[in-house]
Amino acid sequence: MFNSFGNILRLTSFGESHGKGVGGVIDGFPAGVEIDMEFIQQELNRRRPGQSAITTARKEPDEVELLSGVFEGKTTGCPIGFIVWNQNQHSNDYNNLKDIYRPSHADYTYAVKYGVRDHRGGGRSSARETTSRVVAGALAKLALKQLGIKITAYTAQVGEIKLEKDYTAYDLSTIEENPVRCPDQEKAKEMQELIYQTKGEGDTIGGIVTCVIKGCPVGLGQPVYNKLHAALANAMMSINAAKAFEYGIGYKGIHQKGSQQNDIFFNDNGTINTHTNNSGGIQGGISNGQDIYFNVLFKPVATVLMEQPTVNADGTDTTIKARGRHDPCVLPRAVPIVEAMSALTILDYYLLDKATRL
Amino acid sequence: MFNSFGNILRLTSFGESHGKGVGGVIDGFPAGVEIDMEFIQQELNRRRPGQSAITTARKEPDEVELLSGVFEGKTTGCPIGFIVWNQNQHSNDYNNLKDIYRPSHADYTYAVKYGVRDHRGGGRSSARETTSRVVAGALAKLALKQLGIKITAYTAQVGEIKLEKDYTAYDLSTIEENPVRCPDQEKAKEMQELIYQTKGEGDTIGGIVTCVIKGCPVGLGQPVYNKLHAALANAMMSINAAKAFEYGIGYKGIHQKGSQQNDIFFNDNGTINTHTNNSGGIQGGISNGQDIYFNVLFKPVATVLMEQPTVNADGTDTTIKARGRHDPCVLPRAVPIVEAMSALTILDYYLLDKATRL
Amino acid sequence: MFNSFGNILRLTSFGESHGKGVGGVIDGFPAGVEIDMEFIQQELNRRRPGQSAITTARKEPDEVELLSGVFEGKTTGCPIGFIVWNQNQHSNDYNNLKDIYRPSHADYTYAVKYGVRDHRGGGRSSARETTSRVVAGALAKLALKQLGIKITAYTAQVGEIKLEKDYTAYDLSTIEENPVRCPDQEKAKEMQELIYQTKGEGDTIGGIVTCVIKGCPVGLGQPVYNKLHAALANAMMSINAAKAFEYGIGYKGIHQKGSQQNDIFFNDNGTINTHTNNSGGIQGGISNGQDIYFNVLFKPVATVLMEQPTVNADGTDTTIKARGRHDPCVLPRAVPIVEAMSALTILDYYLLDKATRL
Amino acid sequence: MFNSFGNILRLTSFGESHGKGVGGVIDGFPAGVEIDMEFIQQELNRRRPGQSAITTARKEPDEVELLSGVFEGKTTGCPIGFIVWNQNQHSNDYNNLKDIYRPSHADYTYAVKYGVRDHRGGGRSSARETTSRVVAGALAKLALKQLGIKITAYTAQVGEIKLEKDYTAYDLSTIEENPVRCPDQEKAKEMQELIYQTKGEGDTIGGIVTCVIKGCPVGLGQPVYNKLHAALANAMMSINAAKAFEYGIGYKGIHQKGSQQNDIFFNDNGTINTHTNNSGGIQGGISNGQDIYFNVLFKPVATVLMEQPTVNADGTDTTIKARGRHDPCVLPRAVPIVEAMSALTILDYYLLDKATRL
Repeated sequence: MFNSFGNILRLTSFGESHGKGVGGVIDGFPAGVEIDMEFIQQELNRRRPGQSAITTARKEPDEVELLSGVFEGKTTGCPIGFIVWNQNQHSNDYNNLKDIYRPSHADYTYAVKYGVRDHRGGGRSSARETTSRVVAGALAKLALKQLGIKITAYTAQVGEIKLEKDYTAYDLSTIEENPVRCPDQEKAKEMQELIYQTKGEGDTIGGIVTCVIKGCPVGLGQPVYNKLHAALANAMMSINAAKAFEYGIGYKGIHQKGSQQNDIFFNDNGTINTHTNNSGGIQGGISNGQDIYFNVLFKPVATVLMEQPTVNADGTDTTIKARGRHDPCVLPRAVPIVEAMSALTILDYYLLDKATRL
Repeated sequence: MFNSFGNILRLTSFGESHGKGVGGVIDGFPAGVEIDMEFIQQELNRRRPGQSAITTARKEPDEVELLSGVFEGKTTGCPIGFIVWNQNQHSNDYNNLKDIYRPSHADYTYAVKYGVRDHRGGGRSSARETTSRVVAGALAKLALKQLGIKITAYTAQVGEIKLEKDYTAYDLSTIEENPVRCPDQEKAKEMQELIYQTKGEGDTIGGIVTCVIKGCPVGLGQPVYNKLHAALANAMMSINAAKAFEYGIGYKGIHQKGSQQNDIFFNDNGTINTHTNNSGGIQGGISNGQDIYFNVLFKPVATVLMEQPTVNADGTDTTIKARGRHDPCVLPRAVPIVEAMSALTILDYYLLDKATRL
Repeated sequence: MFNSFGNILRLTSFGESHGKGVGGVIDGFPAGVEIDMEFIQQELNRRRPGQSAITTARKEPDEVELLSGVFEGKTTGCPIGFIVWNQNQHSNDYNNLKDIYRPSHADYTYAVKYGVRDHRGGGRSSARETTSRVVAGALAKLALKQLGIKITAYTAQVGEIKLEKDYTAYDLSTIEENPVRCPDQEKAKEMQELIYQTKGEGDTIGGIVTCVIKGCPVGLGQPVYNKLHAALANAMMSINAAKAFEYGIGYKGIHQKGSQQNDIFFNDNGTINTHTNNSGGIQGGISNGQDIYFNVLFKPVATVLMEQPTVNADGTDTTIKARGRHDPCVLPRAVPIVEAMSALTILDYYLLDKATRL
Repeated sequence: MFNSFGNILRLTSFGESHGKGVGGVIDGFPAGVEIDMEFIQQELNRRRPGQSAITTARKEPDEVELLSGVFEGKTTGCPIGFIVWNQNQHSNDYNNLKDIYRPSHADYTYAVKYGVRDHRGGGRSSARETTSRVVAGALAKLALKQLGIKITAYTAQVGEIKLEKDYTAYDLSTIEENPVRCPDQEKAKEMQELIYQTKGEGDTIGGIVTCVIKGCPVGLGQPVYNKLHAALANAMMSINAAKAFEYGIGYKGIHQKGSQQNDIFFNDNGTINTHTNNSGGIQGGISNGQDIYFNVLFKPVATVLMEQPTVNADGTDTTIKARGRHDPCVLPRAVPIVEAMSALTILDYYLLDKATRL
């Protein structure tokens, strides 16, 4: 209800930025899936701060400890508890935040909602929580791999610099070749430069992540309130700093008429196929076997290094100036989180679909 | 799980386009709310097809019958069952759809997922199901009114014709003065003309609905997976033909740096206020007391009157040509549905928030 | 959460004793199940008041109207809405209850919890709500039949008159041969006489219903909080007037040592079997393929025809005397309700189990 | 769904008997509750094996480590992660269980359901999981204390030795004065002797735990499927070895007529009270302000030290003889678990009730 994600496959996460650690319980994970610890670590490394010159310099080694649910290298169908211990916490860096509300952060809303607040590094509202998502998402990816489903996200736009073509024009296997995680190496350089420059200004910048899901079988999703794209929108908008979601042709199709946007079915050597995929692989809320693709807009991170006016907890006007390290662009590290939340959603809906037939 | 919406306040809907009727059960609705049947009917009228020259000519009188949960004019805390009986069903109009998959409709995905399919008028996937949402939303609005929360949506863009300013520039009480439900009467005329022209071509067109929620208290929403804007995204993307969701400054902010987009707190005569509202009234997933606003993109309706190629259920290529009436633009009728889903979401989160403190 | 039952297969019911009707929505019902309306009606007849001299004389024709989810005689996977219209409501019989709290009824607790109360015939707390359960249970039985699972309940004890042997000693197909629904025709007569005599006194009497589930596959149930017998206990205790639940050997085993109660496994011509079934077909919360059996204790119905002291809503002492008709023993009509709730539970857990493997 | 308990307050537990540890996440715990670590430890000590001569000799120090959700000694409203690390694991003691199904254990059902199985000490099905419940229950008790709600359970029967009177006849504050946790010190000695003797025989014995909840406000519980006693039954039957649940007068009332069992209301110096409490504090599924009380039957533990016939995983007949230590009677240690599950249920329903009014 509060800190859980999913229906059948359900991640419940816990932990704060500067507490003992972040972790969670993955319930409903199918039995018999082989666990590849190296792969999970690799995914964590993709999310980790400090991985390149264009992300925050905060160092988090981030090693996951599985606590249950795996026996002799395979999942047992029992809940998978896990924890990533916090290290390198400079809690004192945050003493100045105890009684102050940072602009566009969750400080004020938390304080009013709960009455108490762990102010250190944003506490529960910190993006450090996404570590748990990446661990769970890595496990989901291992299960999806067995089903032939592959999920890839990439940076499609940073500020004004954007890819001109859609995902089909790029080789998505080249994403890890640059720190921006963009499949166009030229654009990647431009983006990287923009981020670096923004970092130098102590400022931040946003952009767009595109995600592509290949190999999804026909039939996932519910027709009314739990449409597959509604579940994906919910998943994406639960990621810190996400501000918009569009799937398929999305906003680009606003100038099209219905006769232009419709995806025409045809008999493709014995199987039913569509000439176009403006629907983004989902029709009537249910996957149709085509590629699923969507965009997620991320706003610039709220923590900037310049002085800003704000108020204290008692309402008096004051100013704030963040110290030390900041993350100039969340995009490169958002890529694995988008993938993780997609993997959790698709595996959940895959399992849910199995329960709809006798 | 499948046909339910909400956590505490939960709507479970039933019904198909050409079955006996559409209806639902609203569970968790608070006791003691006065029921204004005239208001509910008024809301249904706003959703009803055939209300003006620019919507579908299909006539649906759409009168709701409350079946339970109301006693002597007030809600009792017991589940509210309701039904809107179907009338004027031209099921025979759809005989030609029995073995054919309409492009960009749910026919194909339903057939594969369930094995059986009520093909008449789209069956369960028909937008007729939204009648249930409008009934439930009207009830939710009555409860929200007691709390001083007001929700207004309007048409902000049709095809290329769009409002240039944000919601604060318009008098939202004038929306019902034109059939497009647009607060700018000049633009409304242009939009209306475009829709009328598109209708003449047998084609369809999409656009954007903006929604504004005023009076929402601070503290609604969960910090991690059930952020208030994630719940709203989920709600909006569950509406037929919705393809994108953005909240607050959204895509317009992509060129801003963090220092520009941050909403600066200040002491406003004793209460904490912000100079701007790029956050769209939600920070860290929790409402902050400012106006909540967001956009929903709707694609052109898939049913067009020109002949289109497609396949039969057995996979053979064929063509299809819809007969009779079609809805050239879903926007005017989507407005009350967007409001209804917003009302259900906000009331649900209001009740959920009450359960978080001793 | 409030008026829903089940996880995957979920019944949400609505309706009050003297409102328009009682009904519900069955969500998650698998597609492709053939609907036998005659069977459903037959099940409703078994629950119906006025069916014999030993139940309440209140006449309720109780015909169900399916509103959705069935097309050309088969379920479609879409939610099944249904209603049983109320008839023969003597609401005026209950005018005297408006401001009075009947002893051991829900009048007082409802009034405090909700502030308002539909006092007519107990409103929502009336056993009339179980009509919805019997409809949904009948549908579940149709699905279970396809799976070879059969559920039979019977009256095992009324007051002091009880069956001496366990279910294996009786021919359960003879239950409908007497109005008590007891498989021992001699005992049935004694029970019937006791009930008839109690009725004459204007009083009521309780007893025990035993339920047997045959053909349940191995593997249904969750190991920890959602054990199969915990789900059954929850289901049974949700029936009006139920006061106790025991499964397997239950209380009879209190004098046994562990070495006596353990069910010894043996190789039974190639399949794993047990010599005894003290476990009642459930081990570690999961079905083991043996018969599942359990008892449910029902208290005497609270409505008696003699005058009783009580208080008014304002707390002043007064007396109450129910008028007209009463139900001397709930057992005969509880039998189909116990079966219905069992059927819903088993089908739900069957579907849930399907979602636990890739 | 699988390893979670509760609606608003939700415990999701993880861990196996011989894995790294057992723990969980408590979500929905209200903010601002003071945490008393000493009290939590005390509760764990009451559950701990090896605490007296009449329980298993297995030593488990059982110290809980809170991982999140508490800041400066108070809960923050964020999820409370916790772990109790396993120690003193003699995994090799269980090597002989790898390919054998212990009678009346979960070995066989797990193997069929999941395909894989952590056989060490019963893995997930081990009662060691209840450690997590006691931690969560202790936290719930701290919140309930603020509300004036007090929960006490005690051993009421062991084999044939039973308390003759109901809970009102005893001083429940004396329960911890004997290792059986029985409020009658004489009976406690007899019970203790019986258990000790049973232990000497390598056998086990069951009995009854009674639980009493005082101070519960009027109005907790839902009227239909989620009646308060149904939730308690579900909670109790989720405890290992529980076989029956009865509340209020329960089976003792089977010989009463309705006119005898009804609880008569009267004006008790201005408040509404009842002369008797056969309803066990719950009417129509909702608490009525009287004491809530119920019994839970526990069967003899399945692990006995004598040789028993059984089968191997491949179905061949064999014998099994447990080694070393066993728990002759689960009752003394079940007492704190019954209290814990009651506390979680009551707090959950308290919070849920808050969400039912505007």
